[in-house]
Amino acid sequence: MDKKTIIVFSNDLDRAMAAMIIARGAAAMGSEVTLFFTFWGLNLLRKPEAVPVQKTLLERMFGWMMPRGAGKVSLSKMHMGGMGTAMMQHVMKTKQVPSLNEMIEEAQAFGVKFIACTMSMDVMGIKPEELIDGVEYGGVATYLGTADEATVNLFI
Amino acid sequence: MDKKTIIVFSNDLDRAMAAMIIARGAAAMGSEVTLFFTFWGLNLLRKPEAVPVQKTLLERMFGWMMPRGAGKVSLSKMHMGGMGTAMMQHVMKTKQVPSLNEMIEEAQAFGVKFIACTMSMDVMGIKPEELIDGVEYGGVATYLGTADEATVNLFI
Amino acid sequence: MDKKTIIVFSNDLDRAMAAMIIARGAAAMGSEVTLFFTFWGLNLLRKPEAVPVQKTLLERMFGWMMPRGAGKVSLSKMHMGGMGTAMMQHVMKTKQVPSLNEMIEEAQAFGVKFIACTMSMDVMGIKPEELIDGVEYGGVATYLGTADEATVNLFI
Repeated sequence: MDKKTIIVFSNDLDRAMAAMIIARGAAAMGSEVTLFFTFWGLNLLRKPEAVPVQKTLLERMFGWMMPRGAGKVSLSKMHMGGMGTAMMQHVMKTKQVPSLNEMIEEAQAFGVKFIACTMSMDVMGIKPEELIDGVEYGGVATYLGTADEATVNLFI
Repeated sequence: MDKKTIIVFSNDLDRAMAAMIIARGAAAMGSEVTLFFTFWGLNLLRKPEAVPVQKTLLERMFGWMMPRGAGKVSLSKMHMGGMGTAMMQHVMKTKQVPSLNEMIEEAQAFGVKFIACTMSMDVMGIKPEELIDGVEYGGVATYLGTADEATVNLFI
Repeated sequence: MDKKTIIVFSNDLDRAMAAMIIARGAAAMGSEVTLFFTFWGLNLLRKPEAVPVQKTLLERMFGWMMPRGAGKVSLSKMHMGGMGTAMMQHVMKTKQVPSLNEMIEEAQAFGVKFIACTMSMDVMGIKPEELIDGVEYGGVATYLGTADEATVNLFI
């Protein structure tokens, strides 16, 4: 079965949707898809509720400043204080396009593998308990091992 | 003939130029190049003039807020209310670098295939009549089918 | 030895770090890695000090407006007038993650090839004397020739 990887670096709503649409599509067509969530992209995997974990003050501040989960992210353009993002989400709903949260659930249901970058987690102070279920952990070596065997590798 | 694909997600002037320079170059060297225009990237394909089509109010609003064609797009950095973008365009002209519109025409002349993402068109309310000539239509399956056989796949 | 290429288009601190972490990692695992620095990415290669070169007024203005070297770049998000970027750099230091400048030196020490895009240099008015040592020069044909033979090609 052919392989595909995507580095999900961004937590912009639009870029995250692009990553999920490609991942879901490829998995549905029989590919073995691995998503590597790194830097801002890690925020897409955060549980929507606060999880009680030990953090330094700086780690806590990072946590506050970044969106908690895929339900909280914004468009990279035309966000307009939230109006543009809300408009886009409204339109998607009326056109029966799944929400980003639903796309993530569907991707997992299709067998897309989610790997969280442990180095970014360490820098940003994000703990495994704060992430949604079904996430594995790895670093750049994990990524490179998979990407070497894949036919499509994207950085989003 | 080897294949290359680029997902043109962005409508930033600088990123769009990068995509076109790679696409033109690869086509000139004998590659079969396919560009998939999705999300903001679709705006690069819009005709510069208003096209009378039926739209909902929201679709009309999206249309107003987004740049109409490659002649209207801005740098991702240093746009500075238009001054930076104008400076860059001026410098490109004096250095005989083609404009983005000319690069797009040259890419088409070199046989680069342009595919507009139908799902994004639907969400953004962009109609086929609003796009420049020579554009084909497709979705994620079209992309994946081509990317699987390509030696280079980029997301810009 | 398998090959990997990354187009380093951005000069955001976060994206540049991602590029360097992948490049260093791949080179350490035995890959032949080539980084193509283009557009804003060229700024990562600028020497931190002013270099006396002949420039037009516009070239000089571009030079002033863009960051001079990897020590001067900012996060793409949460920069917050410098506070977010400083926080991130502080955290990286306490977690013993190398700085971007150190990552660049390590990548070069591991044999990662750095190629500066001559067309971007021309447009932005950046002269070879202004760039750090160990950089080669090339254009889109150089990139495509290497990317065609590579197993992983990213655009960051």
